[in-house]
Amino acid sequence: MREIFSDRARLQGILDFESALARAESHAGVIPPSAADVIKKHCDAQHFSYSELAEAASAAGNIAIPIVSALRRRVANENAKAAEFVHWGATSQDAIDTGLVLQIRRGVALLDADAGRLATALAKLAAKHATTPILGRTWLQPAVPITFGLTAVGWLGAVERSRKQLAQAARAASVIQLGGAAGSLAALGDRGLDVAQSLSKELSLELPSLPWHAHRDRIVNLGAALGVLIGALGKIARDISLLMQSEIGEVSEPAAPGRGISSTMPQKHNPVACAAALAAATRAPGLVATLFAGMPQEHQRGLGGWQAEWDTLPELFVLAAEALGPLTGVAEGLVVNTARMRQNIDATNGLVMAESVAMALTPSVGREAAISLVEAAIQRALDQRIQLRAALGGDAEVSRHLTPPLLDQIFSLDDHVKAAERLVERALAESKVRLKPDTTERV
Amino acid sequence: MREIFSDRARLQGILDFESALARAESHAGVIPPSAADVIKKHCDAQHFSYSELAEAASAAGNIAIPIVSALRRRVANENAKAAEFVHWGATSQDAIDTGLVLQIRRGVALLDADAGRLATALAKLAAKHATTPILGRTWLQPAVPITFGLTAVGWLGAVERSRKQLAQAARAASVIQLGGAAGSLAALGDRGLDVAQSLSKELSLELPSLPWHAHRDRIVNLGAALGVLIGALGKIARDISLLMQSEIGEVSEPAAPGRGISSTMPQKHNPVACAAALAAATRAPGLVATLFAGMPQEHQRGLGGWQAEWDTLPELFVLAAEALGPLTGVAEGLVVNTARMRQNIDATNGLVMAESVAMALTPSVGREAAISLVEAAIQRALDQRIQLRAALGGDAEVSRHLTPPLLDQIFSLDDHVKAAERLVERALAESKVRLKPDTTERV
Amino acid sequence: MREIFSDRARLQGILDFESALARAESHAGVIPPSAADVIKKHCDAQHFSYSELAEAASAAGNIAIPIVSALRRRVANENAKAAEFVHWGATSQDAIDTGLVLQIRRGVALLDADAGRLATALAKLAAKHATTPILGRTWLQPAVPITFGLTAVGWLGAVERSRKQLAQAARAASVIQLGGAAGSLAALGDRGLDVAQSLSKELSLELPSLPWHAHRDRIVNLGAALGVLIGALGKIARDISLLMQSEIGEVSEPAAPGRGISSTMPQKHNPVACAAALAAATRAPGLVATLFAGMPQEHQRGLGGWQAEWDTLPELFVLAAEALGPLTGVAEGLVVNTARMRQNIDATNGLVMAESVAMALTPSVGREAAISLVEAAIQRALDQRIQLRAALGGDAEVSRHLTPPLLDQIFSLDDHVKAAERLVERALAESKVRLKPDTTERV
Amino acid sequence: MREIFSDRARLQGILDFESALARAESHAGVIPPSAADVIKKHCDAQHFSYSELAEAASAAGNIAIPIVSALRRRVANENAKAAEFVHWGATSQDAIDTGLVLQIRRGVALLDADAGRLATALAKLAAKHATTPILGRTWLQPAVPITFGLTAVGWLGAVERSRKQLAQAARAASVIQLGGAAGSLAALGDRGLDVAQSLSKELSLELPSLPWHAHRDRIVNLGAALGVLIGALGKIARDISLLMQSEIGEVSEPAAPGRGISSTMPQKHNPVACAAALAAATRAPGLVATLFAGMPQEHQRGLGGWQAEWDTLPELFVLAAEALGPLTGVAEGLVVNTARMRQNIDATNGLVMAESVAMALTPSVGREAAISLVEAAIQRALDQRIQLRAALGGDAEVSRHLTPPLLDQIFSLDDHVKAAERLVERALAESKVRLKPDTTERV
Repeated sequence: MREIFSDRARLQGILDFESALARAESHAGVIPPSAADVIKKHCDAQHFSYSELAEAASAAGNIAIPIVSALRRRVANENAKAAEFVHWGATSQDAIDTGLVLQIRRGVALLDADAGRLATALAKLAAKHATTPILGRTWLQPAVPITFGLTAVGWLGAVERSRKQLAQAARAASVIQLGGAAGSLAALGDRGLDVAQSLSKELSLELPSLPWHAHRDRIVNLGAALGVLIGALGKIARDISLLMQSEIGEVSEPAAPGRGISSTMPQKHNPVACAAALAAATRAPGLVATLFAGMPQEHQRGLGGWQAEWDTLPELFVLAAEALGPLTGVAEGLVVNTARMRQNIDATNGLVMAESVAMALTPSVGREAAISLVEAAIQRALDQRIQLRAALGGDAEVSRHLTPPLLDQIFSLDDHVKAAERLVERALAESKVRLKPDTTERV
Repeated sequence: MREIFSDRARLQGILDFESALARAESHAGVIPPSAADVIKKHCDAQHFSYSELAEAASAAGNIAIPIVSALRRRVANENAKAAEFVHWGATSQDAIDTGLVLQIRRGVALLDADAGRLATALAKLAAKHATTPILGRTWLQPAVPITFGLTAVGWLGAVERSRKQLAQAARAASVIQLGGAAGSLAALGDRGLDVAQSLSKELSLELPSLPWHAHRDRIVNLGAALGVLIGALGKIARDISLLMQSEIGEVSEPAAPGRGISSTMPQKHNPVACAAALAAATRAPGLVATLFAGMPQEHQRGLGGWQAEWDTLPELFVLAAEALGPLTGVAEGLVVNTARMRQNIDATNGLVMAESVAMALTPSVGREAAISLVEAAIQRALDQRIQLRAALGGDAEVSRHLTPPLLDQIFSLDDHVKAAERLVERALAESKVRLKPDTTERV
Repeated sequence: MREIFSDRARLQGILDFESALARAESHAGVIPPSAADVIKKHCDAQHFSYSELAEAASAAGNIAIPIVSALRRRVANENAKAAEFVHWGATSQDAIDTGLVLQIRRGVALLDADAGRLATALAKLAAKHATTPILGRTWLQPAVPITFGLTAVGWLGAVERSRKQLAQAARAASVIQLGGAAGSLAALGDRGLDVAQSLSKELSLELPSLPWHAHRDRIVNLGAALGVLIGALGKIARDISLLMQSEIGEVSEPAAPGRGISSTMPQKHNPVACAAALAAATRAPGLVATLFAGMPQEHQRGLGGWQAEWDTLPELFVLAAEALGPLTGVAEGLVVNTARMRQNIDATNGLVMAESVAMALTPSVGREAAISLVEAAIQRALDQRIQLRAALGGDAEVSRHLTPPLLDQIFSLDDHVKAAERLVERALAESKVRLKPDTTERV
Repeated sequence: MREIFSDRARLQGILDFESALARAESHAGVIPPSAADVIKKHCDAQHFSYSELAEAASAAGNIAIPIVSALRRRVANENAKAAEFVHWGATSQDAIDTGLVLQIRRGVALLDADAGRLATALAKLAAKHATTPILGRTWLQPAVPITFGLTAVGWLGAVERSRKQLAQAARAASVIQLGGAAGSLAALGDRGLDVAQSLSKELSLELPSLPWHAHRDRIVNLGAALGVLIGALGKIARDISLLMQSEIGEVSEPAAPGRGISSTMPQKHNPVACAAALAAATRAPGLVATLFAGMPQEHQRGLGGWQAEWDTLPELFVLAAEALGPLTGVAEGLVVNTARMRQNIDATNGLVMAESVAMALTPSVGREAAISLVEAAIQRALDQRIQLRAALGGDAEVSRHLTPPLLDQIFSLDDHVKAAERLVERALAESKVRLKPDTTERV
């Protein structure tokens, strides 16, 4: 992703615009076809020095101005007439924005592919662990047992929604920018819309209903979609890093030489992929906010708001990629310790079944009494360090209503596992990932 | 909007959930129909004191816990048995989130209606002023003439796209929340999905593929859509407030008694609607960022991230409404001073036609020579405080290539107006607003 | 805090300004003393309806305009002449900003007192647990043993620095606002500075070198200081909530009836104070960003930036208070389970001493060999589920360099405890909290 | 600034830490002096390839781990024994944080120098234009006349306060980071504090009361101070860019070849320095928010929050520098058009004196009558396009109370200029900038 949003790629995006513009204008009869040919030949980033251009850009106000000058000089060396037609009728923002859209298209394709891989890996985890019991945890405290498949399918759902949202936002943003000096295409006379139409075909981008120099909603929506994807990844990373605490030890990032090592502690196995995703999720909100903050741009082209996007949107792409890649690796190789999951449930001494017991007692004794009975049993269990089941079994009133087989049933986890499994199956059926039947392999 | 997101409305949303849940559970055979009837009767915010509930909430951790307790007490007063079934199998987040979704539905409907009115007003402005010349301004400097209709139709496009985006995000977020303690619906045994299905019908909301306690992408996307709408309004307000500067004086917020007055200066007519929209656009990015920041929520229900949404999303709705309402009034009553628009173009002494002249000269003398000739004429025009046209007319070389009729044509603005008009017509045709033919009335 | 930043308090702050202004102007001979007396009498929020004023404010553009009108009407009822002198020479922003500063002063005093209590509680924890061993954890993984006192004194340092920073920012912001229509005090002729001087005495605020209508750095700095305090509290809450996970169980929020209960799960004891602090820490960054975003305000008084502060700064005060209060209660009553702390260290089977062993071996065998030996022992310890010490003892090469007493020493934790204790003592000595010697009581 | 925060400078900062650590440890008798000498020799960024290190860093989790390995290899090539002592007892965060502090020191020095130059330039503008009348503008509308010196001295005040705040924050952040694996310095046994003391001397940084791995308040405060500076610059840029609108034309960025040119419009002179400052002011709030968001870091060293700082703080330094440098150039060469300032006042036809007239009339006729009379005159002035003074002169009632000489006095601007001048003089006297008497040259 750093390559797609490198200085060179920005330069090439602008040159691709200039080249396509020349062709479009030649098709529309605005400039001679021969000029378009010469211009095209020189629109290669290899011929230019970005660092020199960047210096000139800070005086000129943007990078397209020196790029266009340099391109014109190069073309003029070959054909002075053709050089006249470089950037004909366009403004520098046309070039920069369209170039950015070309970078966006590549960047989104990359993310989409990675998100697809992540979705597949998560679907496999969900299918494989649809009935693997694990503590459900709320407020960072044990709640009731669920299954690890339910956790994984929850991650999957968020990833799939984010991916879809990103694709939609990218589609909406896949439009050319061509407006000329103040967005009216006036410099192209009555051929403005023809050129625009042709340009959009050249670049396989849509033609928007209007130039959008100072209307940035498409870009901001795209940034927001990146932010949502990063946030969804941050949630997965938060969960995995918490489950990976040595005292919990239920999952672990896959080990690899040099990964997650410490400069001093040989025993360390740090969750570096989770850290990358959490760092991205810490940074994305501020970067997304910057895009929103830049929206109220002045008149036909503004002062500051647009410029604030230049490094911000690329940074969001890079963060998304640097969170997504490693986390996909983690999902594909996740080490799952089902024994520890069970052990951690057991270590609660059955307290996490308190809700089930209370609900089972309620029809017989009423809710308040049920809760009182359960609370008393919880207290005994804690005081005597015994299982809640034992504490309940020792209570005559409870025993009157809940027979041992019934208590067995409640404490067997079966109902919780079953309930979670139903949700996992339903969610997998609604997912776009298709796994081979009876396996967790993708079709 | 403040009413829709008031304390009382939040309370009512939660009660609506509890009432619908009871009905859904009675349909699914989980609780007796009679209990559902009694519960429903008491689910009216009028019976409760929000301030007392809020106090209890800060100890309990959320507002639903004391609401459910208070509801249970009220129901118990009438029917102890029915009280057992209040909130049966649900968790407090189920109630709070579903209640919020109900508020969201009302809030979005309100915004959508206002945005529709604003779109109509802007379409009328665009149609009426499709050919009204105004300075195009970039970098806060005169660029080339465009038309005021082009400005207005640009605003319209952003408003329509934002409105569509908001509707989509609202549709995606219009799902019930029902997961029980840890999102597995386990407390409802094998009736969980039936209850959920029934609940979604009761409330006319969709059933999501999974409970989404700790997966907030739908809420964040909605917040982002509100932010984009607010940003689009901020851009309109920025433009209007700038055009309304006394030195420019091209448009003005409509006057009304008491509006925009000063506590000391009788001559003042402050753009208060623009100020409201700009304040909203200043606040929205930070609020949206908060929603993104809350995404990485821990495990099945998190600690802090969810709570951070509670006041943030409502605030975004309020800001959107308080920007949209006044700005719609402004658009409907905008005072447009076409004479000043023309005067401000003329006051540039024709300098804004420099690009046109240079482009017209280029085929004959080449680009560099054309620009040199124009720059020399600009310098003469500035030094002698004469029109650029006059300065050009005094140059023999220029006169050789540009005849007086040709110069007339260039300086007539016709080509610029025509170019802008084409874009306005095309964009109006693509807009959803339908105006009556030959008028600017809406069909 | 909600009271200090309530609507009524905002109103009273503005009235306090108007009253003090009248007195200052009477001292400076600008208005008759009798007028000041009458004005003062009516400057009581009880006489006004905030909701009516708020309605008028949205048309006028700010709340001071209708307040001043209402005050003038009230005064006029008693004395028409005196009414002329209400708000004499001031602008509405003078009243709003100065009123805000008065609220800030009260708000900061409240926070400072609470932060002082929190600091004391943390100092006691640090002193009491200076030598209580606990796992040091980095990357959410066990690192090396430290002491719980070191953790607590780290929290203390951040709280004390934040408190100091807040006091400084509050001091810098404790200035009157008085500039009149455009910040030049022109309406007060040559008495402007006299009035300003006198006003600052009346309100016990400093006189700034200039009116600061559009220069908001003092307010933004204050908001940032609130944000830093909230962030420091968020860090404490993060740590406590993690240590409170049942699988770790090293500390716990103190229990209290109704605190942290669940609507369904009787066994639950949720960290609600931590949740409040973490929610505040999730919201503060966006709110602080809003204050920064509002800084580039136009000319003498701006459009949107100032208005964006109105609800944002108060919200930061409320969040700080709602994080600080509960967290102080937690620190004062924190349940510390030193046995679990020790148990969790032991549960690592000595792996957390790996760094110490490697460092002890390095002088004899070189770093690389030392690390290889330790890694091999770690692998054996993991494979055979034995203590690292045992695994090391079984290695001839290791035994050649590390005698059993030396290994005892390393695995005794003594050196780690001692090192932490030294830092705790030094940090407590530098703290402003004074504890009674030999106890953890405050002097 | 880009150089100070370049990859290479980051690398050198870390190497400077390692070198100084070795010396400090040799002084404290922890490692042999000869080892420190060899280590020092190799701590030169020239010997390392940042891009290779960066690749390894993404697996390891941070950049210091591969740097330390590479350094150790280099040292080992010369002296295997010395290589054992590289990074002895430290953790990678010690190196990264201390290295960052070294970069911060250089970055702040650069900003401070530039801010000093800007302050001087603004003080000169203030002194020179202390009595130059200009429209005071509020809500982007004419308010009352002030002087341009008052505007400039307002900018100056904000710059000086921001500069002071930045220096304070930098001083507080100028502390070493040395804590070892989990912040207890345990690996250095009883020599930990000695080494720390010595290290702080080596680097001329303060010794903090504790290691601060997971307590980031100093860094966040520094980021906030940068944000406030950037915001203050953004305000200046906003004002200048507004005053530079061609319809206002009161000031202008100095012209220079290639500065602010357009790719198509020869007449353009774009405010590129203002754009840079406004872009920075648009981006800073989100970046500052990121630093705040990272504060709640887990335990002894966190997961994500720290990593989120790595690119964010440097970016704030770069933005501050890129706003400050060009804006300083603008302030030093600002083109001030005092004639246009006067003309724009006159163009209001005296309406901006309405407050003065009303205040002058109030003692005679009462406030309400005064305002009515003025409002009627304003209406006549607007309707008949005459001066407010003329409209007032034609009113018998007004003439009864305000004689022509009195009206002359009011409309002369003298009182407004005088009032502003007083404030300018007072503020300049309180400024740290010393200008030569009777000139605007700095002493």
